[in-house]
Amino acid sequence: MTICEHLDLSASCAGTRLFRWWKWAAAVPRHELLCIFGTGDLGRSLGQRLLQCGYKVVYGSRRPGGCGPLPQGTQAMNHEAAAQHAHLIFICVHREHYDFLEPLAPQLKGKVLVDVSNNLKKNLYTDSNAEYLQRLIPGAHVVKAFNTLSAWALQNGPADANRQVYLCGNNAEAKQAVTETATKLGFSVLDRGSLSAARELEDFPLQLFPRWRLPIRLTIGLTASFFFYLLLREVIYSYIVQQKDMSFRIMVSLANKVFPIVSLILLSLCYLPGIIAAFLQLYRGTKYKRFPDWLDRWMLCRKQLGLLALAFASLHVLYTLILSFRYYVRYRLAAHTISQIRENKTSPFDTTMAWRTDTYYSMGIIGFCFYLLLGISSLPSVSNALSWREFSFIQSKLGYITLFFCTFHTYLYGWDRFLYPSTYKWFSPPGYMLSLVVPTVVLVLKLLLLLPCVDRSLIRIRQGWERTDPEEESTKSLLR
Amino acid sequence: MTICEHLDLSASCAGTRLFRWWKWAAAVPRHELLCIFGTGDLGRSLGQRLLQCGYKVVYGSRRPGGCGPLPQGTQAMNHEAAAQHAHLIFICVHREHYDFLEPLAPQLKGKVLVDVSNNLKKNLYTDSNAEYLQRLIPGAHVVKAFNTLSAWALQNGPADANRQVYLCGNNAEAKQAVTETATKLGFSVLDRGSLSAARELEDFPLQLFPRWRLPIRLTIGLTASFFFYLLLREVIYSYIVQQKDMSFRIMVSLANKVFPIVSLILLSLCYLPGIIAAFLQLYRGTKYKRFPDWLDRWMLCRKQLGLLALAFASLHVLYTLILSFRYYVRYRLAAHTISQIRENKTSPFDTTMAWRTDTYYSMGIIGFCFYLLLGISSLPSVSNALSWREFSFIQSKLGYITLFFCTFHTYLYGWDRFLYPSTYKWFSPPGYMLSLVVPTVVLVLKLLLLLPCVDRSLIRIRQGWERTDPEEESTKSLLR
Amino acid sequence: MTICEHLDLSASCAGTRLFRWWKWAAAVPRHELLCIFGTGDLGRSLGQRLLQCGYKVVYGSRRPGGCGPLPQGTQAMNHEAAAQHAHLIFICVHREHYDFLEPLAPQLKGKVLVDVSNNLKKNLYTDSNAEYLQRLIPGAHVVKAFNTLSAWALQNGPADANRQVYLCGNNAEAKQAVTETATKLGFSVLDRGSLSAARELEDFPLQLFPRWRLPIRLTIGLTASFFFYLLLREVIYSYIVQQKDMSFRIMVSLANKVFPIVSLILLSLCYLPGIIAAFLQLYRGTKYKRFPDWLDRWMLCRKQLGLLALAFASLHVLYTLILSFRYYVRYRLAAHTISQIRENKTSPFDTTMAWRTDTYYSMGIIGFCFYLLLGISSLPSVSNALSWREFSFIQSKLGYITLFFCTFHTYLYGWDRFLYPSTYKWFSPPGYMLSLVVPTVVLVLKLLLLLPCVDRSLIRIRQGWERTDPEEESTKSLLR
Repeated sequence: MTICEHLDLSASCAGTRLFRWWKWAAAVPRHELLCIFGTGDLGRSLGQRLLQCGYKVVYGSRRPGGCGPLPQGTQAMNHEAAAQHAHLIFICVHREHYDFLEPLAPQLKGKVLVDVSNNLKKNLYTDSNAEYLQRLIPGAHVVKAFNTLSAWALQNGPADANRQVYLCGNNAEAKQAVTETATKLGFSVLDRGSLSAARELEDFPLQLFPRWRLPIRLTIGLTASFFFYLLLREVIYSYIVQQKDMSFRIMVSLANKVFPIVSLILLSLCYLPGIIAAFLQLYRGTKYKRFPDWLDRWMLCRKQLGLLALAFASLHVLYTLILSFRYYVRYRLAAHTISQIRENKTSPFDTTMAWRTDTYYSMGIIGFCFYLLLGISSLPSVSNALSWREFSFIQSKLGYITLFFCTFHTYLYGWDRFLYPSTYKWFSPPGYMLSLVVPTVVLVLKLLLLLPCVDRSLIRIRQGWERTDPEEESTKSLLR
Repeated sequence: MTICEHLDLSASCAGTRLFRWWKWAAAVPRHELLCIFGTGDLGRSLGQRLLQCGYKVVYGSRRPGGCGPLPQGTQAMNHEAAAQHAHLIFICVHREHYDFLEPLAPQLKGKVLVDVSNNLKKNLYTDSNAEYLQRLIPGAHVVKAFNTLSAWALQNGPADANRQVYLCGNNAEAKQAVTETATKLGFSVLDRGSLSAARELEDFPLQLFPRWRLPIRLTIGLTASFFFYLLLREVIYSYIVQQKDMSFRIMVSLANKVFPIVSLILLSLCYLPGIIAAFLQLYRGTKYKRFPDWLDRWMLCRKQLGLLALAFASLHVLYTLILSFRYYVRYRLAAHTISQIRENKTSPFDTTMAWRTDTYYSMGIIGFCFYLLLGISSLPSVSNALSWREFSFIQSKLGYITLFFCTFHTYLYGWDRFLYPSTYKWFSPPGYMLSLVVPTVVLVLKLLLLLPCVDRSLIRIRQGWERTDPEEESTKSLLR
Repeated sequence: MTICEHLDLSASCAGTRLFRWWKWAAAVPRHELLCIFGTGDLGRSLGQRLLQCGYKVVYGSRRPGGCGPLPQGTQAMNHEAAAQHAHLIFICVHREHYDFLEPLAPQLKGKVLVDVSNNLKKNLYTDSNAEYLQRLIPGAHVVKAFNTLSAWALQNGPADANRQVYLCGNNAEAKQAVTETATKLGFSVLDRGSLSAARELEDFPLQLFPRWRLPIRLTIGLTASFFFYLLLREVIYSYIVQQKDMSFRIMVSLANKVFPIVSLILLSLCYLPGIIAAFLQLYRGTKYKRFPDWLDRWMLCRKQLGLLALAFASLHVLYTLILSFRYYVRYRLAAHTISQIRENKTSPFDTTMAWRTDTYYSMGIIGFCFYLLLGISSLPSVSNALSWREFSFIQSKLGYITLFFCTFHTYLYGWDRFLYPSTYKWFSPPGYMLSLVVPTVVLVLKLLLLLPCVDRSLIRIRQGWERTDPEEESTKSLLR
C-alpha cells in the first residue's frame, strides 16, 4: 500500500502521473518491474499481490485506456510497450485468446512468459496451454506456474493448501527467475521438471480426490447392500414374523453392525490385490510382465481403501462405546435384574463367558490400535520420514497382523452361533458371517505364500529371475 | 572430535601449535575453512558443530589472546587476519556491536557474511539486523541464516523442530555457499528470497503461537463465562433452593456441559466470518474493496478456532464415554432399579425415547467423525498434498455438514425441554439453548446464501464482476 | 510403450533394427540419451521407467549379445561404446564388480556417474560405495542417488515412502543433471551435500527403526515384568490363598493395569534424562563438557519413549472405556443390586466418593488430552511448522503438566489404599505404587530445579557461563 500512496500524490492529473511513473519505472532495476498481460480478475489479483510485495507492475492490454479499475500504482499500456519494459511477463488471458500473442513474437523473444492459465475441464485440448504457448512463441521461455493456486491465494498470499507453487519449464534460468518471484511472494516452490509436465499441473487444480472415487463408490455400495440385508433380517423379519417393532434399532444397532462388516471387508480388500499379484507372478514365472489393468488400478487405491476401512472402524468403536448408556441397553439390563429378583434365582458366574467376551474385546482393541498405526504411518509427513523398508514393514507385516486380529475378533463375536438354526433367519446367514469370507480367504492365501518353498520362488522372481519354459521361449523369439 | 585430537599432538607448546595450524590451514581448500566473528556462546557452539562436520574454523576476536576456551582445533586471531583466510564469515556478535565491522569493509569485500543474530524482542529496531549489516558493508554479500535454530541445535545438529534452516539474501552464489554448509551440517534449507525477508526470519524465533492468542483468549473467556453460568444454575441453585449439595457435579457433569457448548460456539465462529464477508461483498457489489481489519483478523484465525473447537469436542467425547462408570450414575441406576422393584411396577419400553436418544448419539458420533476429518486435513502435510479445490471442499462443504450435525445433535439433546417451566431455573435458559444461537444463525444465513439468485450474484462478484452505481462511480473518479 | 512399439516395426531383422536405432539415437538431444551399466534386475527396472518417461536408454554390458531380455526399445553394447553416447551413466552393478570400470577411466572422464548401489548390511566396507567409485575414476563426477528407493518405485514411479530421491555429490552441475532426471521421473529431490554423505545414504535403506530399538526393548521388558508381577498378585495369589479361579482377569483387568503402569513410567523416563543433564551441568559448572554416552543415547530416544507411552496410554483408555459392558462387571453390578434388595438395605450416597472418582476420571482425561497434544506436535510436519520456542514450550512445559496430571490421576486411584494391610498381598506393594516411584522423583527434582536460585545458575550456565575453580583451571592447563 505504501508504494501506491507514494505514487499517488498527484491524484488529479493523470498525464503528469503517467510521466512521473515512467521516469520512476526507468530507475527501477529491471527484474523488479513485472508485466501482466490481461486486466481481468486474475491479472488484477496477481498485480495487487505483486505490488504489495514490492514489485512494480505494468499491464499489457488491448484497450489500455478502457480496461476498468486497476490496482493503484500500476499503469496499463499496449502489449508491445508493456513487453518492452519487463523481463518477466505473466500471461493472464484465456488460452482461447493466445493467438493475439503471435504477432508479438519479436518483442517477446528471450522473455520469460509465465503461463498461469487453467482450463475449465480436463482433456479439452490435445496439448497443454503452456506447450501451446511455447509453440506460438518459440523464442520465449515459457514457464508454467501459479496455476495450482486459488485466486484468493494469488491475491492474499500463501495459506493452508496454497503454500506451494509448482512450476515447470524448459529453461533453467527462466525457472530461476520465476522461483525468485514466487519466493518473494511468500510461496515455496516445487520444480516439476520440463514443460512436458505442464499437462499434469493444469489437471491438478481440476481434480477432486480422483484416487478416492473408486474406493468411495465401493464403500457406498457395500454399506448400502449390508444395510438393506441387515434391515431385512433385524427389523423387517421381527416385524413380520414376531410382530415386534424393532425399527429403533436402525440408528445404532444396525449401524454398528454395518460399519464393522464394511470395515473388515475393505481392510481385506487392501491385501487381496497383493496376493493376487504374487500368485500371478508365480504362475507366469516372471515379474517383467505387466499386471492386468484392473489389478494395477486396484493396487493404486489400496491406501484409500485402508483409510476408509479405518474411518469405518473408528465409527464402529465410537458406536460400541456408547452402547452402555443407550436407553435400550439400560432398559434391558434393569429388566434382566428385576426378572432375576422376581424369579428369585441367581445365574451363576460363567468363567468361559468371561474369557470369551474379554478376549473378544481385547482382540478388537489391539486390532484397532494397529489400524490407527497404519493410518498414522500413511500421513504424508510420516511416510516421507520412513525408509521404504520401514514403510513396507508397517504396511505389510503390521497390516496382516491387523487383519488377523480383526478377523479373530469377528470369529469370537460369532463363537458357536453358527450351530444354532435360529441364527439363520429366513435361511440367510447373519452379516458377520458374510464379512468373514474375504478376510479368511486372504489370510489363508497369505499363509500359503509364506510356505518356505513358495516363498523362495517368489523371492527369486522378484529379484529378477525368470522361469523359461523351452516352449514359451520359442514363442517369444517368434514374436520378437 | 578426531580432528581435534589429531591436531592436538603438541599439547604443551602453543607457539609450535599455532605455526603447525597455519601450515595445515593453508593446505585446506579455501571453502573448507570458515571464519566466525565472536567468541561468545553462540560462536563457540557453532564452531564446535562445524568442526565435527569436517570444517576448519578460525575465530575473529578483539582480544585473540584472551577470549576464553575455544573448541580444540580452532585458532583465534584478530578480525582482519581471520577475515583474510575464509570466504564465509559467521557474524556471531550482537547487533549493538556491528559498528566494529565498518572499518573492516575493505577486507570483507566480496565475502559472504552470515548474519545469525536475533533480537530480544520484536520491533526493537526499524530495520532488520541483516539489512543493517548489509548497509554497513555494502561490498559484502550478507545472508541471513541459522537464526531460527536453537543454540542446542547449532551445537548438536538437527532435531525435531530444528531441521530447517531458513535463509535469505540478495546474492544467489552467497546463498548457495551457505546452503552447502547448512546441508553439510545436516539441515535442510528453505530459501526465503531476498534480504528484505530478514525481518520475518528474525521475528520467527521470538514468536509463541501468535495466531493462537486471540482464539485462546476467546476460548478461555467463553469457558469461564459458561462455567460460572452453569455453576449458578446447577450447583448454587440446588444449594439455595433445594438445599442439596451437588458440588461434586463440578468435576464431570458441569465440565461435560461447558465443553460441548464452547465447542459448538467456536465451530460456528469459524464459519460466521465467511458469511459476513459474503454479505459484505453482496452489499458492496465488488470483491476489490478490503474487508474491515477485524474481519480480516477473524478470518485468519479460523483454523485455530476450529482446532480448539475440535479439542473441546474431544474432551466432550471422553467425558461422555466415562459417564457409565461414574459412581453417581451407577448409584442412580441401581437406585432406580431398586425403587422399581420395591414399588413393584415396570416402566414400559418407550420406542420414541429409544429413537430419540439413539438418533441423538448417532448425530453426535457422525458430527465428531467429520470434526476429526477437518482436523486431519488441516495437518500441514495433508493440506499440502491437497489441491485447493479439494481443501476448500473439505473445509467448507464438510465443515458446514459438521456444523449441521453438531447443531442437530444439540437440538435433539434439548428435545421438548424448552416447553417446561422447570427448565428455566431463576428464569435463565439452560446452557445448551444459549449455545444454539450462533450456529443456528450461521446455518440460516448460509441457507440464504445458497438460494439460487443470491448464489449467482455472489459467484459473479467473486469472478471479478463489479456493480457500478452511476453515483458511486462519480465519487470514485473524484477520489482518484 | 509407444516408443517401443514405434521402434519395433522391423521385428525379425535385428541388424536393421540396430542400425535404425543408431540413426535415431544420433538425432536425439544428448541429454535425453542415458546409459545404464549393468543388465541385472535393477538396471532393467530403471531402464523401463526411464523409457516410459521419454528417455532413450542404452545398456553397457560385458556380453552385449547375451544379457537376457532388456526393455524393448533399448540396445545393449559394450561399456566403451555405451559410455561414449551418454553424458549420464547409471552404475547398476554390485560394488564387488566396480573394478571393471577402472580401465574405462578415459571414456568416463567428465561424465556423470550415478551410483545407485546398496550394500547387504552396514559397515561391510570402510568407505561408501560412491566414494570408492570416485576414487577409482577420479575424472568422473560421481553422484550418489536413487539408492533409497525400492526397486518397485524405480520401476513404477513414486509412491508413499518412495517420493524423495536423496542425492549427494561433489560436483554441482552433475547433481543438477541427476536432479533433472529424477524430477522428470516424478520424484522430488533432496540434496544431502557432498559425496561424504554417501555413507549415510547407503545406510538409510538398511535401517529398520534404529532409534526405536532401545525404547521398544525397554517397553517389552517393563511390560513383561509388570505382567508377571501382577499375575502373581492377582491370579496366582487368589488361586493359592483364596482357591478362586480368577484367570479370566488376564485378558482385560490385568492388561488394563499393566498398560497405564508402563505408560506412566515411560513418560517419566522421557523427562528424567533432561533432569539428570541439568544436575550434571550444575555440578560441573559448565555446558561445554560432553554428557556421558548413556545419557546422550537416552536423550536421543526421548521422542520414541514418549510415543510408546502415548500408545500404551491409548490402550489404557480403550480398555477402560469398554469396562462397563464387560460380562464380569455387569454380573457384579447386578449381583450388588440384587444383594441390596435381598438384604433390604440402601447404601447412602457418598459425596466424598463422588468427588474423588470424578476427579480421578477428570485428571485422567485431561492428562490424556495433553498426551495426545504432545503426540500430534511430534508429527514431522507439525514440528517443522513450529518455531523451536513453540516446540520446546509444548514438549517441555506441557510435557511436565501431562506428567503431573497422570501422576495425580494415579495417586487418586490409590487414595487411602496404602493404609490397609490387605493391599500388600504376600507383602508385595500393588503395581500402581511401583509405577509412582519414577514420576514422583522426576516431579520433585523438577520442582527443585525451578527454585529461583537453582534456576538462575542453570540459565547462566546454559548461556555459556563457566564456573572456574582455580584448582580445576590448573588441571586444565596441564592437560592442554
